[in-house]
Amino acid sequence: MTPDDQTGPVDLTERFRALSATASFNEWAGFDVVRVIEGECDLRLVWRSEDMGQYAGFLHAGVIASVLDTACGFAATAIVGPVLSSHFSMNCLAPAVGDEFIATGRVIKAGRKQLFTSGELHAHQDDSSKLIATANTILVPV
Amino acid sequence: MTPDDQTGPVDLTERFRALSATASFNEWAGFDVVRVIEGECDLRLVWRSEDMGQYAGFLHAGVIASVLDTACGFAATAIVGPVLSSHFSMNCLAPAVGDEFIATGRVIKAGRKQLFTSGELHAHQDDSSKLIATANTILVPV
Amino acid sequence: MTPDDQTGPVDLTERFRALSATASFNEWAGFDVVRVIEGECDLRLVWRSEDMGQYAGFLHAGVIASVLDTACGFAATAIVGPVLSSHFSMNCLAPAVGDEFIATGRVIKAGRKQLFTSGELHAHQDDSSKLIATANTILVPV
Amino acid sequence: MTPDDQTGPVDLTERFRALSATASFNEWAGFDVVRVIEGECDLRLVWRSEDMGQYAGFLHAGVIASVLDTACGFAATAIVGPVLSSHFSMNCLAPAVGDEFIATGRVIKAGRKQLFTSGELHAHQDDSSKLIATANTILVPV
Repeated sequence: MTPDDQTGPVDLTERFRALSATASFNEWAGFDVVRVIEGECDLRLVWRSEDMGQYAGFLHAGVIASVLDTACGFAATAIVGPVLSSHFSMNCLAPAVGDEFIATGRVIKAGRKQLFTSGELHAHQDDSSKLIATANTILVPV
Repeated sequence: MTPDDQTGPVDLTERFRALSATASFNEWAGFDVVRVIEGECDLRLVWRSEDMGQYAGFLHAGVIASVLDTACGFAATAIVGPVLSSHFSMNCLAPAVGDEFIATGRVIKAGRKQLFTSGELHAHQDDSSKLIATANTILVPV
Repeated sequence: MTPDDQTGPVDLTERFRALSATASFNEWAGFDVVRVIEGECDLRLVWRSEDMGQYAGFLHAGVIASVLDTACGFAATAIVGPVLSSHFSMNCLAPAVGDEFIATGRVIKAGRKQLFTSGELHAHQDDSSKLIATANTILVPV
Repeated sequence: MTPDDQTGPVDLTERFRALSATASFNEWAGFDVVRVIEGECDLRLVWRSEDMGQYAGFLHAGVIASVLDTACGFAATAIVGPVLSSHFSMNCLAPAVGDEFIATGRVIKAGRKQLFTSGELHAHQDDSSKLIATANTILVPV
């Protein structure tokens, strides 16, 4: 990398890697901050059967919620600074099976009192990609 | 109550402890199945700062979602057997700070195609208890 | 009842009848403000087949949403004054068939930036009452 | 494309105009079925201050819900036939002010037991268009 690569987007991505490292759950889950720009964030999650599964061996719905909520939160934080999750909803469209998962969070509307985001989670396995879950969150600047 | 009265609930609670032990994420999180009856479930979660925190040191919203989704899922499974989470939503009412948390899931309506549940998460610290989050889920029998 | 009984609750109920009369949709729908106290509101809706039905002849989901959103909004307004609906969600548990419907809205948490409410809609027919839908809303003081 | 290829969409749109005319609430609201293809529907709603307003004179949140729920329902019905709304949620992003409103519903996932949709409502005034609300619904084939 040259110094020029670190302007704007690269700086933001690096800044959110540092932020994520301060959250002990994010460290446990191994959230990999792939990309952050203002209002958008991609996180990668690598599947671990030994501590991320539900009873049938799929990725636990709580871990799906975690990575979607975090991607949406980072997308919002990149615009307004620290936020708190106030509302989170998700629809699980297909069993969460994959070697790794990519969560994308996007800010739909950044209001003064509330930010509205949407998120998508795709499972990747071999060469295929599949939409597993969608999410919506409302965040409040702190 | 006669001893016979105690068989049902106790058996159900034991059965869900065994079920929970088959989910690697539940084992990691240490979900303690306190009580299961048909359509109702209480789970206890003990706070661990070293791997359950978000960046400000509160319980991560994803872990809140995990324990609420699991309590609601167990409440539904106790009526109809195996289910899949189809929709999950939650409102975060207060910062999740406490030594331990009790999640309660209840079935509101058990339909043939879908079950509707609601959940509550209370934080316990010293002698006080506080409502932290509410949830709603829709589950589909498999 | 003595005149003293009419302070508070009666005044609030009257005040919200007057407020409801300023909303042209509420007038069209004929929302009857049965009772308002701080953080709680009951509205009655009388079924009209000629302009409230969906294709199968049940109460239209949009009218269900209307009366639930209004009851929740009044419950919140009774605490903090004017609010705007920011999030509304509902689960439809049973076909909405009845001579009249009672919507109840309750404030779960009144925060400084957001109020969280829950609502229930019961259908009444002959002497029976049935839970038709549940709702959750988030409102922002204006 | 042969002429036969063009019958589909036009027939579908006509078919849903006929279906909408059987719902008394849709007739009252004047939902104009602009376009229906498999999994997608656009509805137009013309603002009427005399019976569609909330207390501040904006389009009532219940009417917003009505047109979004209907657009999403038609998008789903165009794939699988009759459905019932099971879950509806919406976020209100901006005050609903406009001469007319366009609701778009899209099917995200058509499963055997449930269909998942998303919707958007845009307000049109003079030459401008503004995103007012987003929605998500879950529908069950009947």
